[in-house]
Amino acid sequence: MTLSPKALDRAEIETLTAFAGRLADASRAVILPYFRTVMPVDDKADLWGGAKGYDPVTEADRGAEAAIRALIEAEYPDHGILGEEYGAKQGSSPLTWVLDPIDGTRAFITGLPTWGTLIALNDGREPVVGVMDQPFTGERYVGTEAGAFLGGRKLSVRACPGIAHARLMTTSPHLFRTKESLAAFTRVADKAQMVRYGGDCYAYAMVASGHVDAVIETNLEPYDIQALIPIVRGAGGQITSWTGGDAQQGGSVVATGDKRLHAEILALLNA
Amino acid sequence: MTLSPKALDRAEIETLTAFAGRLADASRAVILPYFRTVMPVDDKADLWGGAKGYDPVTEADRGAEAAIRALIEAEYPDHGILGEEYGAKQGSSPLTWVLDPIDGTRAFITGLPTWGTLIALNDGREPVVGVMDQPFTGERYVGTEAGAFLGGRKLSVRACPGIAHARLMTTSPHLFRTKESLAAFTRVADKAQMVRYGGDCYAYAMVASGHVDAVIETNLEPYDIQALIPIVRGAGGQITSWTGGDAQQGGSVVATGDKRLHAEILALLNA
Repeated sequence: MTLSPKALDRAEIETLTAFAGRLADASRAVILPYFRTVMPVDDKADLWGGAKGYDPVTEADRGAEAAIRALIEAEYPDHGILGEEYGAKQGSSPLTWVLDPIDGTRAFITGLPTWGTLIALNDGREPVVGVMDQPFTGERYVGTEAGAFLGGRKLSVRACPGIAHARLMTTSPHLFRTKESLAAFTRVADKAQMVRYGGDCYAYAMVASGHVDAVIETNLEPYDIQALIPIVRGAGGQITSWTGGDAQQGGSVVATGDKRLHAEILALLNA
Repeated sequence: MTLSPKALDRAEIETLTAFAGRLADASRAVILPYFRTVMPVDDKADLWGGAKGYDPVTEADRGAEAAIRALIEAEYPDHGILGEEYGAKQGSSPLTWVLDPIDGTRAFITGLPTWGTLIALNDGREPVVGVMDQPFTGERYVGTEAGAFLGGRKLSVRACPGIAHARLMTTSPHLFRTKESLAAFTRVADKAQMVRYGGDCYAYAMVASGHVDAVIETNLEPYDIQALIPIVRGAGGQITSWTGGDAQQGGSVVATGDKRLHAEILALLNA
Protein backbone atom coordinates (compact mmCIF):
# COMPACT_ATOMS: atom_id res chain seq x y z
CA MET A 1 0.00 0.00 0.00
CA THR A 2 1.39 3.41 -0.96
CA LEU A 3 0.04 6.41 0.88
CA SER A 4 0.41 10.03 -0.18
CA PRO A 5 2.84 12.01 1.94
CA LYS A 6 1.22 14.20 4.55
CA ALA A 7 2.38 17.82 4.62
CA LEU A 8 2.36 18.75 8.29
CA ASP A 9 1.86 22.35 9.34
CA ARG A 10 3.95 24.01 12.02
CA ALA A 11 1.43 23.36 14.82
CA GLU A 12 1.23 19.67 13.92
CA ILE A 13 5.02 19.40 13.86
CA GLU A 14 5.17 21.02 17.30
CA THR A 15 2.60 18.62 18.72
CA LEU A 16 4.35 15.60 17.25
CA THR A 17 7.77 16.85 18.40
CA ALA A 18 6.43 17.14 21.94
CA PHE A 19 5.05 13.61 21.60
CA ALA A 20 8.47 12.39 20.39
CA GLY A 21 9.87 13.85 23.62
CA ARG A 22 7.37 11.76 25.60
CA LEU A 23 8.52 8.71 23.66
CA ALA A 24 12.12 9.51 24.58
CA ASP A 25 11.13 9.94 28.24
CA ALA A 26 9.48 6.50 28.22
CA SER A 27 12.45 4.91 26.50
CA ARG A 28 14.90 6.54 28.91
CA ALA A 29 12.98 5.17 31.91
CA VAL A 30 13.32 1.65 30.51
CA ILE A 31 16.95 1.81 29.37
CA LEU A 32 18.77 3.70 32.09
CA PRO A 33 18.32 1.09 34.87
CA TYR A 34 20.08 -1.46 32.60
CA PHE A 35 23.09 0.74 31.78
CA ARG A 36 26.30 -0.53 33.41
CA THR A 37 24.60 -3.49 35.01
CA VAL A 38 25.32 -7.13 34.34
CA MET A 39 22.80 -8.14 31.70
CA PRO A 40 22.42 -10.98 29.23
CA VAL A 41 23.57 -9.95 25.76
CA ASP A 42 22.21 -11.91 22.80
CA ASP A 43 23.93 -12.01 19.43
CA LYS A 44 21.50 -11.32 16.62
CA ALA A 45 24.20 -12.25 14.11
CA ASP A 46 23.63 -15.87 15.18
CA LEU A 47 20.27 -15.63 13.45
CA TRP A 48 21.88 -14.54 10.20
CA GLY A 49 24.82 -16.92 10.09
CA GLY A 50 27.14 -14.16 11.23
CA ALA A 51 26.97 -12.19 7.97
CA LYS A 52 26.91 -8.92 9.90
CA GLY A 53 29.42 -9.96 12.54
CA TYR A 54 28.69 -9.75 16.25
CA ASP A 55 25.42 -7.86 16.67
CA PRO A 56 24.56 -7.53 20.34
CA VAL A 57 21.05 -6.87 21.61
CA THR A 58 19.75 -6.68 25.17
CA GLU A 59 16.51 -6.56 27.11
CA ALA A 60 17.03 -2.79 27.27
CA ASP A 61 16.79 -2.51 23.47
CA ARG A 62 13.66 -4.65 23.34
CA GLY A 63 11.99 -3.14 26.40
CA ALA A 64 12.56 0.43 25.24
CA GLU A 65 11.15 -0.20 21.77
CA ALA A 66 8.13 -1.98 23.25
CA ALA A 67 7.49 1.01 25.54
CA ILE A 68 7.73 3.46 22.63
CA ARG A 69 5.48 1.37 20.38
CA ALA A 70 2.84 1.03 23.10
CA LEU A 71 2.64 4.82 23.46
CA ILE A 72 2.38 5.35 19.69
CA GLU A 73 -0.31 2.68 19.38
CA ALA A 74 -2.29 4.24 22.22
CA GLU A 75 -2.05 7.83 20.95
CA TYR A 76 -1.78 7.48 17.17
CA PRO A 77 -3.06 4.00 16.28
CA ASP A 78 -3.20 4.95 12.57
CA HIS A 79 0.54 5.78 12.37
CA GLY A 80 3.02 3.33 10.92
CA ILE A 81 6.07 2.13 12.88
CA LEU A 82 9.46 0.85 11.73
CA GLY A 83 11.69 -0.28 14.60
CA GLU A 84 15.00 -2.11 14.81
CA GLU A 85 13.78 -4.75 17.24
CA TYR A 86 10.15 -5.37 16.30
CA GLY A 87 10.05 -4.54 12.61
CA ALA A 88 7.49 -2.73 10.48
CA LYS A 89 3.82 -2.01 11.18
CA GLN A 90 2.01 -0.47 8.21
CA GLY A 91 -0.24 2.39 9.30
CA SER A 92 -3.37 3.76 7.66
CA SER A 93 -1.72 7.21 7.89
CA PRO A 94 1.34 8.09 5.76
CA LEU A 95 3.09 9.13 8.99
CA THR A 96 5.61 6.56 10.23
CA TRP A 97 7.74 6.50 13.36
CA VAL A 98 11.23 5.16 12.72
CA LEU A 99 12.92 3.86 15.88
CA ASP A 100 16.26 2.61 17.12
CA PRO A 101 15.94 2.24 20.89
CA ILE A 102 19.71 1.92 21.39
CA ASP A 103 21.87 3.08 18.51
CA GLY A 104 25.33 1.97 19.56
CA THR A 105 24.55 -1.19 21.50
CA ARG A 106 28.30 -1.95 21.51
CA ALA A 107 28.94 1.34 23.31
CA PHE A 108 26.01 0.59 25.63
CA ILE A 109 27.28 -2.84 26.70
CA THR A 110 30.84 -1.57 27.16
CA GLY A 111 29.61 1.19 29.51
CA LEU A 112 30.48 4.15 27.27
CA PRO A 113 28.05 7.10 27.20
CA THR A 114 28.13 7.43 23.38
CA TRP A 115 24.96 5.52 22.46
CA GLY A 116 21.57 7.12 21.93
CA THR A 117 17.88 6.50 21.40
CA LEU A 118 16.79 7.51 17.89
CA ILE A 119 13.19 8.53 17.19
CA ALA A 120 12.13 9.92 13.80
CA LEU A 121 8.79 10.87 12.35
CA ASN A 122 8.60 10.40 8.58
CA ASP A 123 5.79 12.17 6.72
CA GLY A 124 5.86 9.68 3.85
CA ARG A 125 8.38 11.77 1.96
CA GLU A 126 11.18 12.33 4.47
CA PRO A 127 11.90 12.47 8.20
CA VAL A 128 10.50 15.75 9.56
CA VAL A 129 11.13 15.28 13.29
CA GLY A 130 14.29 13.72 14.74
CA VAL A 131 15.26 13.05 18.36
CA MET A 132 18.57 11.69 19.64
CA ASP A 133 18.33 11.09 23.37
CA GLN A 134 21.31 10.21 25.62
CA PRO A 135 19.81 9.15 28.95
CA PHE A 136 23.03 8.89 30.97
CA THR A 137 24.29 12.40 30.22
CA GLY A 138 20.74 13.75 30.04
CA GLU A 139 21.28 15.22 26.56
CA ARG A 140 18.41 15.37 24.08
CA TYR A 141 19.05 16.60 20.54
CA VAL A 142 15.89 17.56 18.62
CA GLY A 143 15.67 18.57 14.96
CA THR A 144 12.82 19.87 12.80
CA GLU A 145 12.53 22.40 9.99
CA ALA A 146 12.60 25.04 12.77
CA GLY A 147 16.16 24.10 13.64
CA ALA A 148 18.20 21.75 15.79
CA PHE A 149 18.25 22.13 19.56
CA LEU A 150 19.99 20.72 22.61
CA GLY A 151 17.75 21.59 25.53
CA GLY A 152 16.74 25.14 24.73
CA ARG A 153 19.93 26.01 22.86
CA LYS A 154 19.85 26.28 19.07
CA LEU A 155 22.66 24.35 17.41
CA SER A 156 24.72 25.37 14.43
CA VAL A 157 27.34 23.58 12.36
CA ARG A 158 30.79 25.14 12.05
CA ALA A 159 32.55 26.33 8.93
CA CYS A 160 35.24 24.04 7.53
CA PRO A 161 36.81 25.16 4.28
CA GLY A 162 38.23 21.79 3.27
CA ILE A 163 39.27 18.29 4.20
CA ALA A 164 42.73 19.29 5.51
CA HIS A 165 40.97 21.16 8.33
CA ALA A 166 38.31 18.53 8.98
CA ARG A 167 37.58 16.46 12.06
CA LEU A 168 36.18 13.24 10.61
CA MET A 169 34.30 10.57 12.51
CA THR A 170 33.01 7.08 11.85
CA THR A 171 31.88 4.38 14.24
CA SER A 172 34.56 1.84 13.35
CA PRO A 173 36.94 1.03 10.50
CA HIS A 174 35.29 -2.42 10.53
CA LEU A 175 32.09 -0.81 9.24
CA PHE A 176 33.66 -0.80 5.78
CA ARG A 177 33.28 -4.46 4.85
CA THR A 178 34.21 -4.31 1.18
CA LYS A 179 37.62 -3.43 -0.19
CA GLU A 180 36.03 -0.68 -2.31
CA SER A 181 34.21 1.01 0.58
CA LEU A 182 37.29 0.87 2.81
CA ALA A 183 39.40 2.36 0.01
CA ALA A 184 36.87 5.15 -0.51
CA PHE A 185 36.77 5.97 3.20
CA THR A 186 40.58 5.85 3.38
CA ARG A 187 40.90 8.34 0.51
CA VAL A 188 39.03 10.83 2.68
CA ALA A 189 40.53 9.84 6.04
CA ASP A 190 44.11 10.17 4.77
CA LYS A 191 43.47 13.84 3.97
CA ALA A 192 41.56 14.76 7.13
CA GLN A 193 43.13 16.71 9.97
CA MET A 194 42.02 13.97 12.35
CA VAL A 195 39.88 10.84 12.36
CA ARG A 196 37.99 9.75 15.43
CA TYR A 197 36.26 6.40 15.86
CA GLY A 198 33.49 5.28 18.18
CA GLY A 199 30.74 7.83 17.79
CA ASP A 200 27.61 6.05 16.57
CA CYS A 201 24.72 8.55 16.54
CA TYR A 202 26.70 10.89 18.80
CA ALA A 203 28.99 11.77 15.91
CA TYR A 204 26.07 13.26 13.94
CA ALA A 205 24.96 15.24 17.00
CA MET A 206 28.51 16.62 17.19
CA VAL A 207 28.34 17.70 13.52
CA ALA A 208 25.12 19.54 14.36
CA SER A 209 26.81 21.06 17.42
CA GLY A 210 29.78 22.36 15.41
CA HIS A 211 32.48 20.16 17.00
CA VAL A 212 32.90 17.61 14.21
CA ASP A 213 33.03 18.41 10.49
CA ALA A 214 32.05 15.14 8.85
CA VAL A 215 30.74 11.65 9.50
CA ILE A 216 31.13 8.91 6.89
CA GLU A 217 29.44 5.56 7.40
CA THR A 218 28.09 2.63 5.46
CA ASN A 219 25.82 -0.38 5.92
CA LEU A 220 23.30 1.73 7.84
CA GLU A 221 19.63 0.82 8.21
CA PRO A 222 16.86 3.43 7.86
CA TYR A 223 16.36 3.48 11.65
CA ASP A 224 20.10 4.23 12.13
CA ILE A 225 19.86 7.51 10.24
CA GLN A 226 16.34 8.95 9.90
CA ALA A 227 16.26 10.69 13.30
CA LEU A 228 19.64 12.26 12.58
CA ILE A 229 18.64 13.85 9.28
CA PRO A 230 16.45 16.66 10.73
CA ILE A 231 19.08 17.26 13.44
CA VAL A 232 21.96 17.71 10.98
CA ARG A 233 19.85 19.72 8.53
CA GLY A 234 18.24 21.80 11.27
CA ALA A 235 21.74 22.91 12.35
CA GLY A 236 22.61 23.94 8.79
CA GLY A 237 24.41 20.77 7.68
CA GLN A 238 24.07 18.35 4.79
CA ILE A 239 23.37 14.63 4.93
CA THR A 240 23.28 12.53 1.77
CA SER A 241 24.24 9.15 0.38
CA TRP A 242 27.83 8.73 -0.88
CA THR A 243 26.59 9.69 -4.33
CA GLY A 244 24.79 12.80 -3.11
CA GLY A 245 21.32 11.25 -3.07
CA ASP A 246 18.71 10.76 -0.36
CA ALA A 247 20.13 9.25 2.86
CA GLN A 248 16.90 8.18 4.52
CA GLN A 249 17.08 4.52 3.47
CA GLY A 250 20.49 4.22 5.14
CA GLY A 251 23.25 2.42 3.26
CA SER A 252 26.28 4.66 2.71
CA VAL A 253 25.90 8.08 4.31
CA VAL A 254 27.92 11.33 4.56
CA ALA A 255 27.00 14.13 6.95
CA THR A 256 28.88 17.42 7.00
CA GLY A 257 28.60 20.85 8.52
CA ASP A 258 30.03 22.83 5.60
CA LYS A 259 28.72 22.52 2.01
CA ARG A 260 32.21 22.97 0.54
CA LEU A 261 33.48 20.03 2.57
CA HIS A 262 30.50 17.94 1.50
CA ALA A 263 31.30 18.44 -2.17
CA GLU A 264 34.97 17.66 -1.58
CA ILE A 265 34.19 14.46 0.32
CA LEU A 266 31.72 13.22 -2.31
CA ALA A 267 34.38 13.78 -4.97
CA LEU A 268 36.97 11.84 -2.96
CA LEU A 269 34.58 8.97 -2.18
CA ASN A 270 33.77 8.59 -5.87
CA ALA A 271 37.28 9.26 -7.23
CA MET B 1 69.14 12.50 42.06
CA THR B 2 67.62 9.15 43.05
CA LEU B 3 65.42 9.12 46.10
CA SER B 4 64.38 6.07 48.06
CA PRO B 5 60.75 5.13 47.60
CA LYS B 6 58.49 6.22 50.40
CA ALA B 7 56.24 3.49 51.82
CA LEU B 8 53.03 5.29 52.68
CA ASP B 9 50.79 3.99 55.44
CA ARG B 10 47.04 3.74 55.09
CA ALA B 11 46.34 7.10 56.78
CA GLU B 12 48.84 8.88 54.52
CA ILE B 13 47.29 7.26 51.45
CA GLU B 14 43.85 8.41 52.59
CA THR B 15 45.03 11.97 53.11
CA LEU B 16 46.76 12.07 49.74
CA THR B 17 43.75 10.49 48.00
CA ALA B 18 41.53 13.20 49.44
CA PHE B 19 44.03 15.78 48.21
CA ALA B 20 43.97 14.18 44.74
CA GLY B 21 40.20 14.70 44.82
CA ARG B 22 40.78 18.40 45.52
CA LEU B 23 43.15 18.51 42.54
CA ALA B 24 40.44 16.95 40.37
CA ASP B 25 37.90 19.50 41.64
CA ALA B 26 40.24 22.35 40.69
CA SER B 27 40.94 20.86 37.28
CA ARG B 28 37.25 20.29 36.62
CA ALA B 29 36.46 23.92 37.39
CA VAL B 30 39.00 25.03 34.78
CA ILE B 31 38.15 22.53 32.05
CA LEU B 32 34.38 22.28 32.05
CA PRO B 33 33.66 25.87 30.89
CA TYR B 34 35.77 25.16 27.77
CA PHE B 35 34.02 21.91 26.84
CA ARG B 36 31.90 22.26 23.68
CA THR B 37 32.82 25.88 23.17
CA VAL B 38 34.68 27.34 20.24
CA MET B 39 38.31 27.44 21.33
CA PRO B 40 41.68 27.74 19.64
CA VAL B 41 43.32 24.35 19.19
CA ASP B 42 47.09 24.26 18.79
CA ASP B 43 48.91 21.38 17.18
CA LYS B 44 51.84 20.27 19.31
CA ALA B 45 52.97 17.98 16.48
CA ASP B 46 54.09 21.13 14.65
CA LEU B 47 56.82 21.42 17.27
CA TRP B 48 58.07 17.94 16.55
CA GLY B 49 57.94 17.95 12.79
CA GLY B 50 54.73 15.95 12.86
CA ALA B 51 56.38 12.73 14.07
CA LYS B 52 53.41 12.02 16.34
CA GLY B 53 50.76 13.16 13.87
CA TYR B 54 48.16 15.75 14.81
CA ASP B 55 48.44 16.36 18.54
CA PRO B 56 45.89 18.93 19.65
CA VAL B 57 46.20 20.96 22.83
CA THR B 58 43.99 23.72 24.16
CA GLU B 59 43.92 26.40 26.84
CA ALA B 60 41.82 23.95 28.88
CA ASP B 61 44.72 21.46 29.00
CA ARG B 62 47.21 24.13 30.00
CA GLY B 63 44.93 25.93 32.45
CA ALA B 64 43.93 22.74 34.23
CA GLU B 65 47.51 21.55 34.67
CA ALA B 66 48.56 24.98 35.94
CA ALA B 67 45.73 24.91 38.51
CA ILE B 68 46.71 21.44 39.70
CA ARG B 69 50.41 22.31 39.92
CA ALA B 70 49.67 25.47 41.91
CA LEU B 71 47.75 23.47 44.52
CA ILE B 72 50.51 20.85 44.81
CA GLU B 73 53.19 23.52 45.13
CA ALA B 74 51.20 25.29 47.84
CA GLU B 75 50.39 22.17 49.87
CA TYR B 76 53.33 19.84 49.20
CA PRO B 77 56.19 21.97 47.86
CA ASP B 78 58.62 19.08 48.35
CA HIS B 79 56.72 16.72 46.01
CA GLY B 80 57.82 16.12 42.44
CA ILE B 81 55.51 16.74 39.48
CA LEU B 82 55.44 15.23 35.98
CA GLY B 83 52.76 16.74 33.75
CA GLU B 84 51.95 16.46 30.05
CA GLU B 85 51.87 20.20 29.44
CA TYR B 86 54.52 21.65 31.76
CA GLY B 87 56.99 18.80 32.11
CA ALA B 88 58.94 17.52 35.11
CA LYS B 89 59.73 19.19 38.42
CA GLN B 90 62.09 17.18 40.59
CA GLY B 91 60.98 17.15 44.22
CA SER B 92 63.00 16.70 47.39
CA SER B 93 60.50 13.99 48.38
CA PRO B 94 60.34 10.67 46.45
CA LEU B 95 56.60 11.30 46.01
CA THR B 96 55.69 12.52 42.52
CA TRP B 97 52.36 13.60 41.05
CA VAL B 98 51.89 12.41 37.47
CA LEU B 99 49.31 14.46 35.55
CA ASP B 100 47.45 14.48 32.28
CA PRO B 101 44.88 17.29 32.52
CA ILE B 102 42.93 16.06 29.49
CA ASP B 103 43.61 12.51 28.39
CA GLY B 104 41.75 12.26 25.10
CA THR B 105 42.09 15.81 23.80
CA ARG B 106 40.73 14.56 20.45
CA ALA B 107 37.55 13.41 22.19
CA PHE B 108 37.45 16.71 24.08
CA ILE B 109 37.64 18.91 20.99
CA THR B 110 35.08 16.79 19.12
CA GLY B 111 32.58 17.17 21.99
CA LEU B 112 32.52 13.52 23.08
CA PRO B 113 32.34 12.79 26.83
CA THR B 114 35.06 10.10 26.73
CA TRP B 115 38.07 12.12 27.84
CA GLY B 116 39.28 12.38 31.43
CA THR B 117 41.65 14.10 33.82
CA LEU B 118 44.35 11.74 35.08
CA ILE B 119 46.04 12.31 38.43
CA ALA B 120 48.46 9.77 39.92
CA LEU B 121 50.67 9.79 42.97
CA ASN B 122 53.82 7.74 42.56
CA ASP B 123 55.70 6.75 45.76
CA GLY B 124 59.03 6.39 43.92
CA ARG B 125 58.34 2.73 43.22
CA GLU B 126 54.90 2.72 41.59
CA PRO B 127 51.65 4.72 41.37
CA VAL B 128 49.74 4.20 44.61
CA VAL B 129 46.84 6.62 44.09
CA GLY B 130 45.02 7.06 40.77
CA VAL B 131 42.13 9.36 39.84
CA MET B 132 40.29 9.48 36.51
CA ASP B 133 37.82 12.37 36.56
CA GLN B 134 35.17 12.98 33.87
CA PRO B 135 33.79 16.46 34.56
CA PHE B 136 30.90 16.42 32.04
CA THR B 137 29.30 13.22 33.30
CA GLY B 138 30.43 13.91 36.87
CA GLU B 139 32.17 10.55 37.18
CA ARG B 140 35.27 10.16 39.30
CA TYR B 141 37.12 6.84 39.36
CA VAL B 142 39.57 6.46 42.27
CA GLY B 143 41.99 3.59 42.85
CA THR B 144 44.34 2.71 45.72
CA GLU B 145 45.44 -0.52 47.38
CA ALA B 146 42.08 -0.36 49.22
CA GLY B 147 40.23 -0.87 45.94
CA ALA B 148 38.75 1.02 43.02
CA PHE B 149 35.69 3.19 43.48
CA LEU B 150 33.22 5.22 41.44
CA GLY B 151 31.60 7.59 43.90
CA GLY B 152 31.07 5.37 46.91
CA ARG B 153 30.63 2.16 44.91
CA LYS B 154 33.43 -0.40 44.89
CA LEU B 155 34.30 -1.57 41.39
CA SER B 156 35.17 -5.05 40.28
CA VAL B 157 36.38 -6.49 36.99
CA ARG B 158 34.34 -9.25 35.33
CA ALA B 159 35.37 -12.80 34.56
CA CYS B 160 36.27 -13.53 30.93
CA PRO B 161 37.52 -17.04 30.26
CA GLY B 162 39.21 -16.27 26.95
CA ILE B 163 39.63 -14.03 23.95
CA ALA B 164 36.60 -15.39 22.04
CA HIS B 165 34.38 -13.90 24.76
CA ALA B 166 36.31 -10.65 25.15
CA ARG B 167 35.24 -7.06 24.58
CA LEU B 168 38.46 -5.38 23.49
CA MET B 169 39.10 -1.65 23.33
CA THR B 170 41.79 0.63 22.02
CA THR B 171 41.73 4.34 21.30
CA SER B 172 42.37 4.10 17.58
CA PRO B 173 43.83 1.66 15.05
CA HIS B 174 46.15 4.54 14.09
CA LEU B 175 47.84 4.22 17.48
CA PHE B 176 49.77 1.26 16.06
CA ARG B 177 52.32 3.08 13.94
CA THR B 178 54.63 0.19 13.09
CA LYS B 179 53.73 -2.81 10.95
CA GLU B 180 54.78 -5.11 13.81
CA SER B 181 52.65 -3.44 16.47
CA LEU B 182 49.62 -3.35 14.17
CA ALA B 183 50.09 -7.03 13.34
CA ALA B 184 50.36 -7.90 17.04
CA PHE B 185 47.19 -5.97 17.87
CA THR B 186 45.38 -7.54 14.91
CA ARG B 187 46.27 -11.07 16.06
CA VAL B 188 44.32 -10.33 19.25
CA ALA B 189 41.54 -8.25 17.69
CA ASP B 190 40.73 -10.90 15.08
CA LYS B 191 39.93 -13.39 17.86
CA ALA B 192 37.98 -11.03 20.14
CA GLN B 193 34.20 -11.11 20.37
CA MET B 194 34.16 -7.40 19.62
CA VAL B 195 36.56 -4.49 19.24
CA ARG B 196 35.58 -0.98 20.17
CA TYR B 197 37.59 2.15 19.38
CA GLY B 198 37.58 5.59 20.91
CA GLY B 199 37.96 5.05 24.63
CA ASP B 200 41.12 6.81 25.80
CA CYS B 201 41.30 6.59 29.60
CA TYR B 202 37.61 5.69 29.74
CA ALA B 203 38.36 2.24 28.37
CA TYR B 204 40.49 1.41 31.43
CA ALA B 205 37.76 2.67 33.76
CA MET B 206 35.37 0.32 31.94
CA VAL B 207 37.75 -2.61 32.53
CA ALA B 208 37.74 -1.72 36.23
CA SER B 209 33.92 -1.47 36.11
CA GLY B 210 33.51 -4.93 34.54
CA HIS B 211 32.08 -3.80 31.18
CA VAL B 212 35.20 -4.22 29.02
CA ASP B 213 37.60 -7.17 29.20
CA ALA B 214 40.80 -5.78 27.73
CA VAL B 215 42.52 -2.61 26.54
CA ILE B 216 45.59 -2.81 24.30
CA GLU B 217 47.52 0.35 23.46
CA THR B 218 50.96 1.52 22.49
CA ASN B 219 53.02 4.70 22.31
CA LEU B 220 51.74 5.81 25.72
CA GLU B 221 53.53 8.29 27.97
CA PRO B 222 53.86 7.75 31.75
CA TYR B 223 51.16 10.39 32.39
CA ASP B 224 48.75 8.52 30.06
CA ILE B 225 48.79 5.40 32.22
CA GLN B 226 49.98 5.92 35.82
CA ALA B 227 46.62 7.07 37.22
CA LEU B 228 44.90 4.10 35.60
CA ILE B 229 47.16 1.46 37.18
CA PRO B 230 45.75 1.70 40.75
CA ILE B 231 42.20 1.85 39.30
CA VAL B 232 42.57 -1.32 37.22
CA ARG B 233 44.48 -3.18 39.97
CA GLY B 234 42.15 -1.94 42.71
CA ALA B 235 39.25 -3.51 40.83
CA GLY B 236 41.09 -6.85 40.60
CA GLY B 237 42.57 -6.46 37.12
CA GLN B 238 46.04 -6.68 35.62
CA ILE B 239 47.97 -3.99 33.78
CA THR B 240 51.39 -4.69 32.28
CA SER B 241 53.56 -3.97 29.29
CA TRP B 242 53.09 -6.18 26.20
CA THR B 243 55.83 -8.43 27.55
CA GLY B 244 54.29 -8.72 31.00
CA GLY B 245 56.55 -6.12 32.64
CA ASP B 246 55.90 -2.90 34.50
CA ALA B 247 53.49 -0.55 32.65
CA GLN B 248 54.18 2.66 34.55
CA GLN B 249 56.58 4.14 31.99
CA GLY B 250 53.92 3.83 29.29
CA GLY B 251 54.93 2.45 25.91
CA SER B 252 52.94 -0.67 25.01
CA VAL B 253 50.31 -1.56 27.59
CA VAL B 254 47.71 -4.29 28.15
CA ALA B 255 45.01 -4.04 30.82
CA THR B 256 42.61 -6.90 31.49
CA GLY B 257 40.00 -7.90 34.03
CA ASP B 258 40.66 -11.63 34.01
CA LYS B 259 44.12 -13.18 34.60
CA ARG B 260 43.46 -16.00 32.11
CA LEU B 261 42.70 -13.46 29.39
CA HIS B 262 45.83 -11.50 30.23
CA ALA B 263 48.03 -14.56 29.70
CA GLU B 264 46.27 -15.39 26.43
CA ILE B 265 46.65 -11.83 25.11
CA LEU B 266 50.35 -11.64 26.03
CA ALA B 267 50.92 -14.92 24.17
CA LEU B 268 49.10 -13.63 21.08
CA LEU B 269 50.92 -10.28 21.12
CA ASN B 270 54.27 -12.05 21.25
CA ALA B 271 53.43 -14.96 18.91
